[in-house]
Amino acid sequence: MATPIKNKGQIAGQMPGPDPDEQARQSLTRIKQKFIIMSGKGGVGKTSVSVNLAIALAGMGHQVGLLDVDLHGPDIPHMLGISGMLKADDTQKMVPIAYSDHLKIISMESLMPNRDEAVIWRGPVKHGAIRQFIGDVSWGDLDYLIIDCPPGTGDEPLTVAQLIPDAKAVIVTTPQEVALADIRKSISFCKNVRMEIFGIIENMSGFTCPHCHKVVELFGEGGGEKTARNYGIPFLGKIAFDPEMVRCSDNGMAFQQQFTQSPITAAFKKIAEKMAV
Amino acid sequence: MATPIKNKGQIAGQMPGPDPDEQARQSLTRIKQKFIIMSGKGGVGKTSVSVNLAIALAGMGHQVGLLDVDLHGPDIPHMLGISGMLKADDTQKMVPIAYSDHLKIISMESLMPNRDEAVIWRGPVKHGAIRQFIGDVSWGDLDYLIIDCPPGTGDEPLTVAQLIPDAKAVIVTTPQEVALADIRKSISFCKNVRMEIFGIIENMSGFTCPHCHKVVELFGEGGGEKTARNYGIPFLGKIAFDPEMVRCSDNGMAFQQQFTQSPITAAFKKIAEKMAV
Repeated sequence: MATPIKNKGQIAGQMPGPDPDEQARQSLTRIKQKFIIMSGKGGVGKTSVSVNLAIALAGMGHQVGLLDVDLHGPDIPHMLGISGMLKADDTQKMVPIAYSDHLKIISMESLMPNRDEAVIWRGPVKHGAIRQFIGDVSWGDLDYLIIDCPPGTGDEPLTVAQLIPDAKAVIVTTPQEVALADIRKSISFCKNVRMEIFGIIENMSGFTCPHCHKVVELFGEGGGEKTARNYGIPFLGKIAFDPEMVRCSDNGMAFQQQFTQSPITAAFKKIAEKMAV
Repeated sequence: MATPIKNKGQIAGQMPGPDPDEQARQSLTRIKQKFIIMSGKGGVGKTSVSVNLAIALAGMGHQVGLLDVDLHGPDIPHMLGISGMLKADDTQKMVPIAYSDHLKIISMESLMPNRDEAVIWRGPVKHGAIRQFIGDVSWGDLDYLIIDCPPGTGDEPLTVAQLIPDAKAVIVTTPQEVALADIRKSISFCKNVRMEIFGIIENMSGFTCPHCHKVVELFGEGGGEKTARNYGIPFLGKIAFDPEMVRCSDNGMAFQQQFTQSPITAAFKKIAEKMAV
């Protein structure tokens, strides 16, 4: 059974501690811009996009925090080759792991003694955990907080929307129709909870065969762009599929640092520039 | 501290009258075998595998039910070209949609007036909805019930595990390491809730370029098989990636009926035969 995060407030129990919602709000005043990376369905490369946008923004000299609230599949530490447990500072706040001078990371996984263990939590427990990841973390002053949410429109994005009313959504999709049906749900979700949609990214959009160098549309093409246009939402760009990206994620290497000249690296930088306006 | 798993008593509520859990249990006595199709992460083609296994079993002459409990992304109706709302029979139970003489389908989507609308439900509400999909549906006598769960180890699989203690898990993965990290969580989940793992399927395992006919390992290869071996879990087979499968799903066509001679069709039949033993 998974060990839930130890919440000082809850453990102390008897003491009327500080309001955890208020604590989260205070933490957020030191963060200029908050982006929540969403997707209607899983496997569209949302986490990979979150990681690469965070690295691109950090590479531009901004102070960036990357928050992994995908409690059931916290993949960010693995993708970035990070391990180790979180430590607390002298104010008893969790200290995020520094990936570089400009990028700090907090992931559920860092709190789990066994990374193969399933987190079997029902909704209300998740809400508390996410609140702690915002309020009980010494994020310090950040230019950008990138929040990697699990796919769908469940408890996690709902909690983020409630806790961070000024978060903007970046919706990641692949081009095929089944995926698009799901992002229409993400769009409806954002409207329901009144979250601004910053834009849509079309991921895994086209693939060049490494043998014959011809292009194959693995998951179709252009569907994300079309959906953005239909809904009057900004289209942020297309990212091609590259098996090297899978290999980098598997080996804890940042694709952008390994493949500085790739069109994918250029595409991520271009999107990061739009976010940094 | 909140409890990770809530028992039936806490969730079922205090309403007098027929116990809905009992109603679900009675419905289940007329279903011989129950398989829950799970995946550690999204986008591994779990829904596509569920649909194709159901069609393969129905093609063998069995009576099959397909239950879509992916409340946030109910894709099955779209993939099978089904539309229309559910009707009730004279006992006020929901009547599943007949895809063929041998295959009946229930999906969350059939209950939603607008398919682009997001289902924003927190955990306990989902539990009730899933229970209704089992207890309040006139499934009749079935040889197999295939349950397509959302990815991860959240409320939906937990509810299914509690309601259907004799359900067997089929875990779908893609071959790359990041996906495997997540199926280890699914394995740990099944052990925690004491659900038998029937086996592992490795999906999107290899891809043949339609231009040069050379094989490309989009997501690596063999990782699912290796994980099955490491954990002593039966390995059910590999399914290759084929953009035609994406196209069929997008257009509501059953791949197996369009591509009867494909190795993918053969692979699904072989797995269905293992399930039908």
